[in-house]
Amino acid sequence: MQHGTVKGPPLALTMGEPAGIGGEIAAKAWWAVRAAGPAFFLLGDPALVKDAPVALIEAPEQAASAFPHALPVLPLPLAAPAMPGLLDPANAPAVIASIEQAVGFALAGRAGGVVTNPIQKSVLTAAGFAHPGHTEFLGELAGTAQPPVMMLACPGLRVVPVTVHLSLRAALDRLTTDIIVEHGRIVAAALRRDFGIAQPRIAVAGLNPHAGEAGTMGDEDIRIVAPAVEALRASGIAARGPFPPDTMFTPRARATYDCVLGMYHDQVLIPIKTLDMDGGVNITLGLRIVRTSPDHGTALDIAGRGQADAGSLIAALRLAAEIADTRRKAACP
Amino acid sequence: MQHGTVKGPPLALTMGEPAGIGGEIAAKAWWAVRAAGPAFFLLGDPALVKDAPVALIEAPEQAASAFPHALPVLPLPLAAPAMPGLLDPANAPAVIASIEQAVGFALAGRAGGVVTNPIQKSVLTAAGFAHPGHTEFLGELAGTAQPPVMMLACPGLRVVPVTVHLSLRAALDRLTTDIIVEHGRIVAAALRRDFGIAQPRIAVAGLNPHAGEAGTMGDEDIRIVAPAVEALRASGIAARGPFPPDTMFTPRARATYDCVLGMYHDQVLIPIKTLDMDGGVNITLGLRIVRTSPDHGTALDIAGRGQADAGSLIAALRLAAEIADTRRKAACP
Repeated sequence: MQHGTVKGPPLALTMGEPAGIGGEIAAKAWWAVRAAGPAFFLLGDPALVKDAPVALIEAPEQAASAFPHALPVLPLPLAAPAMPGLLDPANAPAVIASIEQAVGFALAGRAGGVVTNPIQKSVLTAAGFAHPGHTEFLGELAGTAQPPVMMLACPGLRVVPVTVHLSLRAALDRLTTDIIVEHGRIVAAALRRDFGIAQPRIAVAGLNPHAGEAGTMGDEDIRIVAPAVEALRASGIAARGPFPPDTMFTPRARATYDCVLGMYHDQVLIPIKTLDMDGGVNITLGLRIVRTSPDHGTALDIAGRGQADAGSLIAALRLAAEIADTRRKAACP
Repeated sequence: MQHGTVKGPPLALTMGEPAGIGGEIAAKAWWAVRAAGPAFFLLGDPALVKDAPVALIEAPEQAASAFPHALPVLPLPLAAPAMPGLLDPANAPAVIASIEQAVGFALAGRAGGVVTNPIQKSVLTAAGFAHPGHTEFLGELAGTAQPPVMMLACPGLRVVPVTVHLSLRAALDRLTTDIIVEHGRIVAAALRRDFGIAQPRIAVAGLNPHAGEAGTMGDEDIRIVAPAVEALRASGIAARGPFPPDTMFTPRARATYDCVLGMYHDQVLIPIKTLDMDGGVNITLGLRIVRTSPDHGTALDIAGRGQADAGSLIAALRLAAEIADTRRKAACP
């Protein structure tokens, strides 16, 4: 956890929605980590940074030496001036270019990882962005054969939902033994590779109340979830479950696993956001690059007022650096 | 909150499953509250109480004077000796009689309320118990025209699920604007009558992730939930929502409402059990009597070992006494 000693390339921070809080939290994060690191640079319009000194750079390699004195910015000018809270589709191309360039630097080994500021999907969609979300876009830019998987982490809890941005009814229709197993394997691999956990313990949530109570409240836990746990165990992964969802997140339960594999979005997002006081982090598993992001949105309602909390972005930067460090140490022990 | 000054009749505590932890936590609860109250008596077999002095009583009216010195027990002998962890259908009639007698005392004004120890439904069902659960049985014994509604409460959070012990798929099929409105009205009335909140604020959870995000993830939040919120508001209830479920339970959000009305079991059981360190309480709304219970089960696995935590039962006793007190003060201001 000695961020200052990380020797890899700097992290690339994307601009995110220019009308949101991205510039503000980037400046606050720089003040918070400028001494100890991790070093990062912003890929965006320098005008978005109001409350920190800026060092304009031309390449990621210039970021580390500038970082102790100013927030390094690799300029990516906006088409129209950013107005806090006011979305402008004219700026969508720069938002997208910021993500693309950040991924390009990470793939080339010139950035240690990508940390993304929140985007406003609607304004990108209006400008022709055809991806269901940020993570899917990154999957296309830097994915593997497997789909990208969303993990959320806060101190003491990691969770991964098997289904994500679907209605609850669509999530029920989507749930199969195969996708649970696929997610369980990606999670186990990521816990080993990215978090350095040699024998990851995965707790699999049931779908129904009380995990179906022996089939009296739905048969999916018997028919779909339990066989997935068996298949994961058969492949050597320390998976257990399906567990009654409501008692999985007590302090005692949390001590028994390294990650919860949940069946739907709110089953795991509710407990982590309920517990998480200091800012959770969203980590994308299954990419060729390291990618984290804060677990909040663009906060258009408070943009430009100096009220935004950079805690989640700071946690995302630190975790990205730790993951990059873990991967580097595994590659060069 | 001065339990010792409550002047009403004692609370009736049911036996619950004799092979479980009911006798043990009754004794522990008596030690915890014998000085300050609330006074209660156990309706069960005196042999279940191992670690507290017992005062055999013949009527609830004898409980208050005995209480400071011994746990009052109104004897209801078991057909077979209770063996920790071993279920015996021969004892089911006494378990059921304990509930029936407790409700009878409460309806007659001879008990201030009923606090129920956990039962093992399977063993009662085998003995002919035809009710889906404890609460439904109480609804039949002491209900009103409305169905009983389950509230869970811990310090700082109250929640009510609109659908309860159903598979997630069945809960989706059951959800209508009418049942949300009906639950909202029962909750508002209970917050006024039982908790003394003059203008209760009810936060209504959305069903889908992000409350459907303007219909892009399911239309139920627009089609079913939002009209229920409007109908509640039109009837003068301070209801708001539907809110994105995952951000409803942060400390900041919890300060803005008196109760969350949730759409399904785990949506509200997960956060309350995640937060609740000291024992949550289950309160049945919509009965003619006061009824609370601990929010855990029979704990057959640790029965007889002295390890059971009486925190939730103690909280249930205290809350039942507070509710009875609030109702009494409203009746005789």
